Amino acid sequence: MKRYRTLTHIIMVVFALAVAVTAVQAADPLLSWNDTAPKKAIVAFVDKVAREGSQDFVPVAERIATFDNDGTLWAEQPTYFQLIFALDRVKALAPKHPEWKYKEPFASLLKGDVKNALAGGEKAIAEIVMFTHTGMTTEEFERVVKDWIVFAKHPKTGKLYTEMVYQPMLELLAYLRANGFKTFIVSGGGVEFIRTFSEKVYGIPPEQVIGSSIKTKFEVRDGKPVLVRLPGLNFIDDKEGKPVGIQMHIGRRPIAAFGNSDGDLQMLQWTAAGKGGRLCLYIHHTDADREWAYDRKSSVGRFDKGLDEAKAKGWTVVDMMNDWKVIFPFELK
Amino acid sequence: MKRYRTLTHIIMVVFALAVAVTAVQAADPLLSWNDTAPKKAIVAFVDKVAREGSQDFVPVAERIATFDNDGTLWAEQPTYFQLIFALDRVKALAPKHPEWKYKEPFASLLKGDVKNALAGGEKAIAEIVMFTHTGMTTEEFERVVKDWIVFAKHPKTGKLYTEMVYQPMLELLAYLRANGFKTFIVSGGGVEFIRTFSEKVYGIPPEQVIGSSIKTKFEVRDGKPVLVRLPGLNFIDDKEGKPVGIQMHIGRRPIAAFGNSDGDLQMLQWTAAGKGGRLCLYIHHTDADREWAYDRKSSVGRFDKGLDEAKAKGWTVVDMMNDWKVIFPFELK
Repeated sequence: MKRYRTLTHIIMVVFALAVAVTAVQAADPLLSWNDTAPKKAIVAFVDKVAREGSQDFVPVAERIATFDNDGTLWAEQPTYFQLIFALDRVKALAPKHPEWKYKEPFASLLKGDVKNALAGGEKAIAEIVMFTHTGMTTEEFERVVKDWIVFAKHPKTGKLYTEMVYQPMLELLAYLRANGFKTFIVSGGGVEFIRTFSEKVYGIPPEQVIGSSIKTKFEVRDGKPVLVRLPGLNFIDDKEGKPVGIQMHIGRRPIAAFGNSDGDLQMLQWTAAGKGGRLCLYIHHTDADREWAYDRKSSVGRFDKGLDEAKAKGWTVVDMMNDWKVIFPFELK
Repeated sequence: MKRYRTLTHIIMVVFALAVAVTAVQAADPLLSWNDTAPKKAIVAFVDKVAREGSQDFVPVAERIATFDNDGTLWAEQPTYFQLIFALDRVKALAPKHPEWKYKEPFASLLKGDVKNALAGGEKAIAEIVMFTHTGMTTEEFERVVKDWIVFAKHPKTGKLYTEMVYQPMLELLAYLRANGFKTFIVSGGGVEFIRTFSEKVYGIPPEQVIGSSIKTKFEVRDGKPVLVRLPGLNFIDDKEGKPVGIQMHIGRRPIAAFGNSDGDLQMLQWTAAGKGGRLCLYIHHTDADREWAYDRKSSVGRFDKGLDEAKAKGWTVVDMMNDWKVIFPFELK
């Protein structure tokens, strides 16, 4: 009797699984994408490389997909979110630095004049980043970012920054992973900054995040080993740095790459130049109502050379206004 | 009728799977390990962190294990295999460099006097490495290593270098992966060198190899993007560099680490200092008959401070002579 019940149970479980699998297959994994050219290109590419028997079949181990972060997985307006974090940190640290009242770029920042603070260009930004991102252990930095990211709100939408991710891209990440892809972030942003939320928000574990980094040093303090973040750049993962970062970290050329700016162009070139099926996709920010519209002349996420090359080479370009049904997950609620 | 046959079929498959699972569980996954303390420590650790309900349970995503390569996964005597590769390359490249006949360390090398060639110490080695490892694209370098590694034979055993891996460690890698661990190599050797064979030999894909590296530059040559290996060190993944490399690449502290020399000490310290269950394991080369016996005074794989600290902290130390039934896979044939 017991054996009979076990068998019945197994059969029921097997059928339940079969039904569940069918349901999953039937649902559209790219529900927030309109049935326009980009969605068709994505589905055709995945079918080409992931279907057994396809002429362009790629083994699972080689299904590497790389994603830029700012402007590709989450928004980047009015400026890069990590820069907003840095500015918030300056305010938080100001009581310990009375000298900042008289020292640029901090003086302007503390008066709320961000524009004047950043007028110093890259030097001013570098100074702000070094002061706010270094001089602590890796664990301390992680805690500071995590404390910020669960409370800080976007100035326009009032949403958490981690809510300002693109719903269609979350679906794309999941769709690729369901088809055997390993998904990586390859960002000009700081690697340790992104790692604090990438797993929870994108399903991308820290070891699959490649980014810019500052120098780090191993030390034993009071018998306890720590890694100290030093005020010096280690690697800039932008433009020519992206293929270099990919090679250093992954050691294998991606077969799919996703970006939105000129900073991603070399990553897409490197991806496109491999043999076999490739998907190079650019996101064009065209929706001033639901998100932002910017490209060739933007100081953030400039998309000029990349747009020309995408057209010349026939890469896929997503027109956010026309190709995406939904931009942010909170629109679905 | 058809439905009945389908059900019968499903039941048979389910039972076959159940039997197979039982068979796998019954077989000893660490067959080449004697039932001594190290094997017991490994099994107890895996049970502790991987068994649901255990007080020290660790989620799969956090089961990170890092392995040194030279002397831990494969042999390193009479010297590091990558150095032997470099010396072979000098010979292969000599016809294109007539000036080497009069220039150290190349002149001595070409006369077969390795000892004199290496008398120049680190400077001589660096010169040899730069000449043989840089000045080509990443793809060209990969081809050169792959061509070498399928033919070159070890001077003592006459075996391929990739056959001189440790059978017990291959079993350990597989055992950890079967229990949800992600296995990484963290080596002082060159990352691109190790990646050419790590997937085939160890089951470790290129993106899970961390190593020393030279500088690399992205270029477009005749319309084709390439990555060029430049004559300059980028990162030395040894000693204090190992925890730094781990943080840069993985961004998460390992819960298990395996090494054999003082070069691995900081990696083990960093691993040990985390919270929860930890396994820090050192391999002690004690078997002069089946492999080599060396430790405190060896110029290759020196194991002196690490041995003291392992004893002081109660880390697991494998005595190769007593704890391993088999050293190399070819002993099994």
